[in-house]
Amino acid sequence: MQALVLRADNFGIEEVELPVLRSGEARVRLLAAALNRRDEWIRQGRYARIRYPAILGSDGCGIVEAVGSDEHREWVGKTVIINPSIGWGTDPRAQGADYEILGMPRAGTLAEYVHVPVDRLHEKPPHMTVEQAAALPLAGLTAYRALFTQGKLQPRQKVLITGIGGGVAVFALQFAVAVGARVFVTSGRAEKLERAQALGAIGGVNYHHPEWERLLREFADGEFELVVDSAGGEPFNALLGLTAPGGTIVVYGATLGTVPAFNLHRLFWRQLHIVGSTMGTDEEFVAMVRFVCEHRIVPVVDSVFPFEQVMDAFERLRSEEHMGKIVVRIAEA
Amino acid sequence: MQALVLRADNFGIEEVELPVLRSGEARVRLLAAALNRRDEWIRQGRYARIRYPAILGSDGCGIVEAVGSDEHREWVGKTVIINPSIGWGTDPRAQGADYEILGMPRAGTLAEYVHVPVDRLHEKPPHMTVEQAAALPLAGLTAYRALFTQGKLQPRQKVLITGIGGGVAVFALQFAVAVGARVFVTSGRAEKLERAQALGAIGGVNYHHPEWERLLREFADGEFELVVDSAGGEPFNALLGLTAPGGTIVVYGATLGTVPAFNLHRLFWRQLHIVGSTMGTDEEFVAMVRFVCEHRIVPVVDSVFPFEQVMDAFERLRSEEHMGKIVVRIAEA
Repeated sequence: MQALVLRADNFGIEEVELPVLRSGEARVRLLAAALNRRDEWIRQGRYARIRYPAILGSDGCGIVEAVGSDEHREWVGKTVIINPSIGWGTDPRAQGADYEILGMPRAGTLAEYVHVPVDRLHEKPPHMTVEQAAALPLAGLTAYRALFTQGKLQPRQKVLITGIGGGVAVFALQFAVAVGARVFVTSGRAEKLERAQALGAIGGVNYHHPEWERLLREFADGEFELVVDSAGGEPFNALLGLTAPGGTIVVYGATLGTVPAFNLHRLFWRQLHIVGSTMGTDEEFVAMVRFVCEHRIVPVVDSVFPFEQVMDAFERLRSEEHMGKIVVRIAEA
Repeated sequence: MQALVLRADNFGIEEVELPVLRSGEARVRLLAAALNRRDEWIRQGRYARIRYPAILGSDGCGIVEAVGSDEHREWVGKTVIINPSIGWGTDPRAQGADYEILGMPRAGTLAEYVHVPVDRLHEKPPHMTVEQAAALPLAGLTAYRALFTQGKLQPRQKVLITGIGGGVAVFALQFAVAVGARVFVTSGRAEKLERAQALGAIGGVNYHHPEWERLLREFADGEFELVVDSAGGEPFNALLGLTAPGGTIVVYGATLGTVPAFNLHRLFWRQLHIVGSTMGTDEEFVAMVRFVCEHRIVPVVDSVFPFEQVMDAFERLRSEEHMGKIVVRIAEA
């Protein structure tokens, strides 16, 4: 089969052999896959414990072509999405030591076929196209846990989602709007602020503005009960001041790195909660899929690239110009 | 009356006039008061919004001598402790804008008399001496909220309390032991580690040891579900690694200041909760007093100074040699 293979000294589409399908696994013929920052970090060698060669890709939608055990044959022929969270373990508070994410070391979805445990399969939400469904799993799961489990979002709460445009941030915006929260955003690009408004945000500010913090406070008429951030870095201390006393900041990434001079006085005097979040449990994945179906949430697909142009898809991801998910079309149904 | 008065250019015992007792207030003739770091910070001018002159002191035990309203006359003659948390407000998650702590700007307990709202009075726990009771309010309240409300401590959990010796840390140790937690501590002094063991801690390590983090992990056989810290500063990133996945760090102070290069990757990948805590609600004060009575917890009094030697008491506080509370004896019953 054709697959996007990362080697220590090469990255590109190659012809590779499909391994033997094992008991308990399903072979999914992929129709579409979606990119995540994780793929780009692994490509750059910035991810922990990279093993080469690796077939990247955590998100996919496809058709079950075969199963390794006869008891699972009802899946054959179904159009599915794949939960990329594998082996979370028994503690809902945190993943266990055996946890992994689909797409390195286990071969991922940027390929014509992927083998996954049957319990990772979920039927494609019927209101989504194949491309939209491929965009959902990793980012949808991450947004769901961040907002609801870790952030304990309540309707009518005032929420700030920083760096709108990334896949998780856009899902967090859509999910928060769906439950009736009042959502504000930040971005470095005016057009993304407009897109966020079109998706239901009240509005936001450009974080390149030297007074973005003051402007945001004025625009939102005060502080936020929940802040959802994946940037970290220097602006993080400003977020401490933008969070209402007793409020929560959920952190699901740190693209700007560590926080210099993290202000604990603000933390304790304002009785803040800072909660880390990454991926989610199997129960959260089920709840997330149910939630997007109930609310008819349609994933925002930024762009679709044919598989042969997957390098352009990575280029688009690096550009930071995207709004929503970057999808790769692998095959037609 | 005699009172410890802080002026912009002077700090010492002075004769000051006792103000008129207002409706809703009680006049308490103080038998003992206790020091808190807050008093020292105000003295050093390092506290926000200091107003001079100020009578310091948040903790006290005394006898109600008079009340401003006849309806409260049942309090007269009772031996009481005082809840120093005033005007928290209606939101249990955080204190409101009108919140203040007894002892600047409102005249505090390092005086022969103090006027406080009657609803701040609580009967002295009968199993405590006057000195022990004076040691309880501020630190007991802070420890109670930090451990139970913010830290959600459960019996059998493994808890790390850093910097044992300070008043709040020692109460946190006693409270955690009382509910059956397995308590570990750090200190810069071997004798404090021994005292902590005598109070029920399993043990601890000296944070001056260059490998304190590894030693503590080995000694405790792994990570902690709850960490209670008031130091912050550079060691804080080590605490992120010492907290079990899904675990919580409660921060109630930052004596070492801000955290350089705060590691958000550890935070989100380990699904940690970092929760700020300061003082507590009226409900928490009631619950704390009930808790110490039920468990017969006796506050650890480091030393008792006569009022005329209150400057020596401050010197003892600054020395960081104390274990538990430093009490000032103001009058005999």
